[in-house]
Amino acid sequence: MSPLFPFSDRARALDAQLAAFMAERVLPAEAEVQAWHDDPATRWTVCPRIEVLKSEAKAAGLWNLFLPDAKHGAGLSNLDYAPLAERMGRVPWSPEVFNCNAPDTGNMEVLAHFGNSDQKAAWLAPLLAGEIRSAFAMTEPEVASSDATNIAFSIQREGDEYVLNGRKWWITGAGDPRCRILIVMGVSTPDAEAHGRHAMVLVPMATPGVRVVRPLQALGHDDAPGGHVELEFTNVRVPASNLIGGEGQGFSLAQARLGPGRIHHCMRLIGMAQRALEMMVARAQTRIAFGKPLGAQGMAQEAIALSRCEIEQARLLTLNAAAKLDAVGNKGAKDEIGMIKIVAPRMACAVVDRAIQIHGAGGLADPFLSAAYTGARCLRLADGPDEVHLASLAKGMLKGHRA
Amino acid sequence: MSPLFPFSDRARALDAQLAAFMAERVLPAEAEVQAWHDDPATRWTVCPRIEVLKSEAKAAGLWNLFLPDAKHGAGLSNLDYAPLAERMGRVPWSPEVFNCNAPDTGNMEVLAHFGNSDQKAAWLAPLLAGEIRSAFAMTEPEVASSDATNIAFSIQREGDEYVLNGRKWWITGAGDPRCRILIVMGVSTPDAEAHGRHAMVLVPMATPGVRVVRPLQALGHDDAPGGHVELEFTNVRVPASNLIGGEGQGFSLAQARLGPGRIHHCMRLIGMAQRALEMMVARAQTRIAFGKPLGAQGMAQEAIALSRCEIEQARLLTLNAAAKLDAVGNKGAKDEIGMIKIVAPRMACAVVDRAIQIHGAGGLADPFLSAAYTGARCLRLADGPDEVHLASLAKGMLKGHRA
Amino acid sequence: MSPLFPFSDRARALDAQLAAFMAERVLPAEAEVQAWHDDPATRWTVCPRIEVLKSEAKAAGLWNLFLPDAKHGAGLSNLDYAPLAERMGRVPWSPEVFNCNAPDTGNMEVLAHFGNSDQKAAWLAPLLAGEIRSAFAMTEPEVASSDATNIAFSIQREGDEYVLNGRKWWITGAGDPRCRILIVMGVSTPDAEAHGRHAMVLVPMATPGVRVVRPLQALGHDDAPGGHVELEFTNVRVPASNLIGGEGQGFSLAQARLGPGRIHHCMRLIGMAQRALEMMVARAQTRIAFGKPLGAQGMAQEAIALSRCEIEQARLLTLNAAAKLDAVGNKGAKDEIGMIKIVAPRMACAVVDRAIQIHGAGGLADPFLSAAYTGARCLRLADGPDEVHLASLAKGMLKGHRA
Amino acid sequence: MSPLFPFSDRARALDAQLAAFMAERVLPAEAEVQAWHDDPATRWTVCPRIEVLKSEAKAAGLWNLFLPDAKHGAGLSNLDYAPLAERMGRVPWSPEVFNCNAPDTGNMEVLAHFGNSDQKAAWLAPLLAGEIRSAFAMTEPEVASSDATNIAFSIQREGDEYVLNGRKWWITGAGDPRCRILIVMGVSTPDAEAHGRHAMVLVPMATPGVRVVRPLQALGHDDAPGGHVELEFTNVRVPASNLIGGEGQGFSLAQARLGPGRIHHCMRLIGMAQRALEMMVARAQTRIAFGKPLGAQGMAQEAIALSRCEIEQARLLTLNAAAKLDAVGNKGAKDEIGMIKIVAPRMACAVVDRAIQIHGAGGLADPFLSAAYTGARCLRLADGPDEVHLASLAKGMLKGHRA
Repeated sequence: MSPLFPFSDRARALDAQLAAFMAERVLPAEAEVQAWHDDPATRWTVCPRIEVLKSEAKAAGLWNLFLPDAKHGAGLSNLDYAPLAERMGRVPWSPEVFNCNAPDTGNMEVLAHFGNSDQKAAWLAPLLAGEIRSAFAMTEPEVASSDATNIAFSIQREGDEYVLNGRKWWITGAGDPRCRILIVMGVSTPDAEAHGRHAMVLVPMATPGVRVVRPLQALGHDDAPGGHVELEFTNVRVPASNLIGGEGQGFSLAQARLGPGRIHHCMRLIGMAQRALEMMVARAQTRIAFGKPLGAQGMAQEAIALSRCEIEQARLLTLNAAAKLDAVGNKGAKDEIGMIKIVAPRMACAVVDRAIQIHGAGGLADPFLSAAYTGARCLRLADGPDEVHLASLAKGMLKGHRA
Repeated sequence: MSPLFPFSDRARALDAQLAAFMAERVLPAEAEVQAWHDDPATRWTVCPRIEVLKSEAKAAGLWNLFLPDAKHGAGLSNLDYAPLAERMGRVPWSPEVFNCNAPDTGNMEVLAHFGNSDQKAAWLAPLLAGEIRSAFAMTEPEVASSDATNIAFSIQREGDEYVLNGRKWWITGAGDPRCRILIVMGVSTPDAEAHGRHAMVLVPMATPGVRVVRPLQALGHDDAPGGHVELEFTNVRVPASNLIGGEGQGFSLAQARLGPGRIHHCMRLIGMAQRALEMMVARAQTRIAFGKPLGAQGMAQEAIALSRCEIEQARLLTLNAAAKLDAVGNKGAKDEIGMIKIVAPRMACAVVDRAIQIHGAGGLADPFLSAAYTGARCLRLADGPDEVHLASLAKGMLKGHRA
Repeated sequence: MSPLFPFSDRARALDAQLAAFMAERVLPAEAEVQAWHDDPATRWTVCPRIEVLKSEAKAAGLWNLFLPDAKHGAGLSNLDYAPLAERMGRVPWSPEVFNCNAPDTGNMEVLAHFGNSDQKAAWLAPLLAGEIRSAFAMTEPEVASSDATNIAFSIQREGDEYVLNGRKWWITGAGDPRCRILIVMGVSTPDAEAHGRHAMVLVPMATPGVRVVRPLQALGHDDAPGGHVELEFTNVRVPASNLIGGEGQGFSLAQARLGPGRIHHCMRLIGMAQRALEMMVARAQTRIAFGKPLGAQGMAQEAIALSRCEIEQARLLTLNAAAKLDAVGNKGAKDEIGMIKIVAPRMACAVVDRAIQIHGAGGLADPFLSAAYTGARCLRLADGPDEVHLASLAKGMLKGHRA
Repeated sequence: MSPLFPFSDRARALDAQLAAFMAERVLPAEAEVQAWHDDPATRWTVCPRIEVLKSEAKAAGLWNLFLPDAKHGAGLSNLDYAPLAERMGRVPWSPEVFNCNAPDTGNMEVLAHFGNSDQKAAWLAPLLAGEIRSAFAMTEPEVASSDATNIAFSIQREGDEYVLNGRKWWITGAGDPRCRILIVMGVSTPDAEAHGRHAMVLVPMATPGVRVVRPLQALGHDDAPGGHVELEFTNVRVPASNLIGGEGQGFSLAQARLGPGRIHHCMRLIGMAQRALEMMVARAQTRIAFGKPLGAQGMAQEAIALSRCEIEQARLLTLNAAAKLDAVGNKGAKDEIGMIKIVAPRMACAVVDRAIQIHGAGGLADPFLSAAYTGARCLRLADGPDEVHLASLAKGMLKGHRA
């Protein structure tokens, strides 16, 4: 934990506790969870070990750590939570153990901030308890969703109901057998101005007309059991009371969940990269090629040293964004959050790429490195491609400067 | 075809014929082949469409184009064959249609050059006919196989037999149900000097003691049905007449197959990158984001233009290596072949990466782009990691210079 | 000269002759020429050694090699000349020795193609003889000259004269005491369409109203004695017969000189990079750090090997562009010429950067490496910044593809 | 100064005061100082404006800010001083205005910590007062000085004197007419173990036998009036009392000055890069090319946004290193200091390169950008080449990990 940043004592204590839990309970379970999902028969079901670990983590107080709202969650600041997210990033499935996995985290935040009491009772409570899972349906195949105003999915009011029609894809987590509820974003008031046309509506997974078209493979990985699925909505009807906030507020609700969510996923990427670096170092110490350990060879040294430099910088940048978000909120920390969205996935891609290279052919088959390599790459597109964030950051600077 | 290089008229004619065959027969079959392997029930079996296409290609004279030996194959020079390999690289499974797929090509070359007449009758003939498939077992999990002198697999003479023991992995093609024969490299004369300790032996796949441990996933792709498998050999016995060449010649046989093979796979990578670039251009023309086509946006233009520059350079470098190999042979073209091994996979990684970025989330799920992204990455390790080739190229220059 | 490419026998003979001349006459004079220009007293004068070498080169028939026009010059194709330009690039001041230095080459080409007989007699003849020097005044400080239609300099017809007013900068060679003539581009017909508004006019350096404002330093280098100067034109009057071609033809004349000129400067960059690589190799063989020669250390090996790969690729790309230019002309080779303009300066920057790094602090003070480092960087802007060429290449592809 | 970091109130007040002084006194003097050194007649003399500004800064209490020792200097921590160094980095000659310029800073630190009272009276006092300048003579032309144990310069005890012989180069500041004293490192006890062979000795510039061979040009810049000179020592005799510390302590004294010095120069590089970024933004707002401002074009936006990301990360990394150095000292912060030495110069090279590109040809002649471009490049070698720091960082990690 960098001396630059004022972490709370509570965060330091939780971090130590989490480190121990990861070492003693999570890492030893990796092979079992991997085997469960390698087996085609159980691939798309929940590995029982995960549920056991969840109970243990809950009992240990390592639960809902992401939620700054002290009533529902741990009440940590974004800065305090960041190093915990980094630790979880070392094992891709581990955030769920602590009920800290996306997109449930974002959905819980939206419900905690903007849901009414009925919505909270019905969906927030079981989500906080880890009893059900949820998904967030925003991206569409036919439009550039990176510009959220393009979203074209139809949410039409008819009497006491909303009728939903359209297609969504890359809906992470909707393949999970425990997924019960979707938050769906679409156009509710087509004639309003661009940023006021959308609404978010709660749609139980079991509603007639909701169809899972197919699980998508992200660079060959289906990320079972949650997956990333394509969904088709045909005349799906939900009560009007399922609206979150008001009509036309969809865009601003989507913005609200972005800041903390990006800090979480960037810190997880940093944890992933950090683990890849540690693997790289360990391998370089022991693997002999051309008569000496890789670690005594210049190109491997360069790979290790550059990776360390890049990880440390991305970590500090993300901690700084978290601290700024805590201090001045989403809007004031816009640039800082944009920067980590650009930097962290590229850094993780570069570091994991080097780790694979140092592991040789074995690196290609290593489950962690393989998932990290493709997963980090996906995050250069998820939640907006780099190019959009680069342009947006530059435009803000050009504008700010002129003023 | 670059005006720099003297392609033969025959090569130009074959190239035009191959282009038409790819457009009319191969591309239209892509969806069918993809669906066959997406279905878990048929994934590890041969798609019947492939066998149909093979018959058609054979009938059209587009067969064994890779083999410079005019008696057994098309008799093209490496330079003449290179653009044909590029065309095949546009569809990863298409080389087999023309009986030009690795590792069968290298195995056929070894048998044609170094096999005795019995070996040719038994294995070369059906391979040339496309009736069976083969694999080449060199890489081992426990040693850095990039330094081939490390290979430790045991091939021991006992009377009229060789007894094989050890473990091999990343054995491409050995998962194919038609794979009948392995060429296995191991230590036959452990006390000889480092480059004279190895032998290559023919091992029928069905020999008792040969066990497929598991198919490996390369960054999440199993490349069924050929796959990349791990093999265990336990007291595997083959007749002494299965030795190719002599004991102690394994290393030099391995060297001999490298030159042409590298040109083939680099040209295929160039074809793959070229297709990705064309997809990028097509997408940039039509996809609208933030009010204008991607193609009118600077960062997309940069991605397209840089990709073109890199592809053209890698193509010229590879054609140049092929021309040099034709002119002066494997040893004289060592530097040129080393350079393409370094350049082509990195180039393909970069180009495909940009193509994915321009395709957005859809690019992650596109079967071609996804396979190209991970496939190109694997080729930075297959057949020796970049670092080994960089060091070897530099050492040659440092030595040459001093002289 | 690669034996694989279709160079003419004459080119091969000239190349061998040029190689010997460079080794025997030019390289041994480097220190003398350097010292002449290091001395503030003689810095902006012509080093007498240059004139001696010019006479020798002329006598040896190594003269006007760049000019494809056999009447005035050597009559070599662009492909044949390219390797000669590479050789000259190894010593930045050497092209003048062979009367092959920019911008005189481009000016001679313009006069040879488009000048009338009076203009040829007055200016082309002494330029071909190497008796005078010339400059080309296009770039302006106030507009983005990369888009040549922006050029705003005024060339106004008044009776039998043109009156010129405006400011030009980065006028290479205009500082040379032997510079007698300028070709000046400006707006002659302001109301015509964008590409038909400009003219080129011959302006003797001594014309009243032409003022050298200052020599510019390109990253700290003034490139004396030719320099890169800023010029002010105040009511400069020249006879109407000094017009080259017709009014409104300035833009197309400017285009015509680009193709060959770009091949020349890219090949010179390749020669420069090649020399830097050879210096790098020589240094790596002998310099000891941390107990072994740099050449035995991985990071230095990587620097050497990557540089070789990049140089070879850029060379092939440029030779290919030259061959295409010979085959189909400027317009048909537009993409190929655009690509070398993007690739060669970046490559040279990267290679020279590595050479400096391997030379340590001494590399920063080495006259060749220092001039190469800043000179290659300037060529990412001279004749249009990378960004313009990247965009233009991409736009051509996007358009071509659609058709 | 980020409100998020634990800067002291005093540092915040000084930072505001320094910002005002830079804006009101330093920036307006840039043209005058530039003109003074552009004039060959005054180039190697001290610009009188500098002495005026020094008096003003001293009077304002903006003096010796770098020195953590409160008795002699401002008594700021490394963290507190870092943002002040960043501000000074925006104008390359400005650190001297505040008596904070290298190598005087390092020499003052060495004298303050390790000098005896006579040495302090004679040299530290006038240095602290800004009355004289000094230089530090370590690097040698004949050996790889990046490995300080290679240093071969001879310092031999003869009676009450030391006799010095050898050659040093890149001695920054020794060209300044006010330079009165050198700290010279050399071998005093040749038979001791590698890290105990060296001593540091004070040598007045005027001592007989000290000869300035030549000023060196770093990529074409001589950095007058301080310069970087080559020095020859021929039987130079100084009293034995000029020894700093003891014989054999040279290496450890050299180590001691490194940590804070690296933080200073990295923060100055960050200030330099920050100014280049601000220039880039300003230019992009106003410069029109191809019909719209550069700032509306994707490639310029990318250049701006990436530069921002890289600067912010390097700044955080350096502040973090400063905080760690304050907390645990030179040795404990070894990795952090190694990382900034690798990261900051590369970052500055990249940012300034982009700034030049956006400024077009004008950027090449801009005095600030030109000096920044070459200056940042030199810092990838000064104080050890990147490769040495990369290897050292990796080796530390490989060792630490094993433990």
